[in-house]
Amino acid sequence: MSIEHLIRVIPDYPKPGILFRDITPLLADADGFREVIDRLAERYQDKQLTHVVGIEARGFIFATALAYKLGVGFVPLRKPGKLPSATYRYSYQLEYGEDSLEIHQDALSVHDRVVIIDDLLATGGTVLAAVELIAQTQARLLECAFLVQLDDLSGVQRLADANIPSYTLCRF
Amino acid sequence: MSIEHLIRVIPDYPKPGILFRDITPLLADADGFREVIDRLAERYQDKQLTHVVGIEARGFIFATALAYKLGVGFVPLRKPGKLPSATYRYSYQLEYGEDSLEIHQDALSVHDRVVIIDDLLATGGTVLAAVELIAQTQARLLECAFLVQLDDLSGVQRLADANIPSYTLCRF
Repeated sequence: MSIEHLIRVIPDYPKPGILFRDITPLLADADGFREVIDRLAERYQDKQLTHVVGIEARGFIFATALAYKLGVGFVPLRKPGKLPSATYRYSYQLEYGEDSLEIHQDALSVHDRVVIIDDLLATGGTVLAAVELIAQTQARLLECAFLVQLDDLSGVQRLADANIPSYTLCRF
Repeated sequence: MSIEHLIRVIPDYPKPGILFRDITPLLADADGFREVIDRLAERYQDKQLTHVVGIEARGFIFATALAYKLGVGFVPLRKPGKLPSATYRYSYQLEYGEDSLEIHQDALSVHDRVVIIDDLLATGGTVLAAVELIAQTQARLLECAFLVQLDDLSGVQRLADANIPSYTLCRF
């Protein structure tokens, strides 16, 4: 089935000129949501993953269902100040100001094999921060996977330039 | 298996005197995470749910995997300003200041049957806001379910006083 038609376009959100890709109709559709998770699970089922890593907050949505389906653990990457034990933190530039992601230092080790999941690849700033955090844990990163990729932004190229494999279900 | 021993206690977080219940070791443990989702799925598998509702951000972790397992849709309740289409909003008091939750107005209808999922029931302010939002959509709420319940706080009693059924996997 097509999952693209379950992603709604909201014009001028969050500001004029932006076409926001709203994934909530896809999430609410049992068949559509199942299709996304099954396609990701099929891709990773023979890869000996130990964990699926999800980026707060919408990355959690796909990462946890995928971890459940694959029978592996889930590791969250969170906004600053949300993880209670010792963390690695990585800060990155936004259009205005900066943001940060954190991971628990003991969440992963050199023996682990992971994929990073987020809902959307746009400029790639967030996922490149996630890649840096996984590198600090010394876990092996197989790939970054996204539900949606915006081809007119720079994220795909930035990942390719950094030799980070990526996979996306829908392109706009 | 026991899931309690996979929940780590962090003393004095986020402030002195608080024993923070850290669920990340449970999430990272494939068997522990699977056990949580399977127990919830067993409870709700014959209830003709149409959607599982999750509260941002940690509620997403359990709600989405449960929705996948049950073969139903997922609806997020989000912090203000995150949902791009028309929303209902409900504000509630915190210890200092207030917070709000939102739901898309078209996310659910009178024909839907849902459970609300969050990781932790403490004072109950957040989940009571969630209950109000579901009421606005006119969907039928069967129950609120939590991974962890803190018995020395008021949430359990506040839900009972409001005649809202609740279910919890671990109590501390």
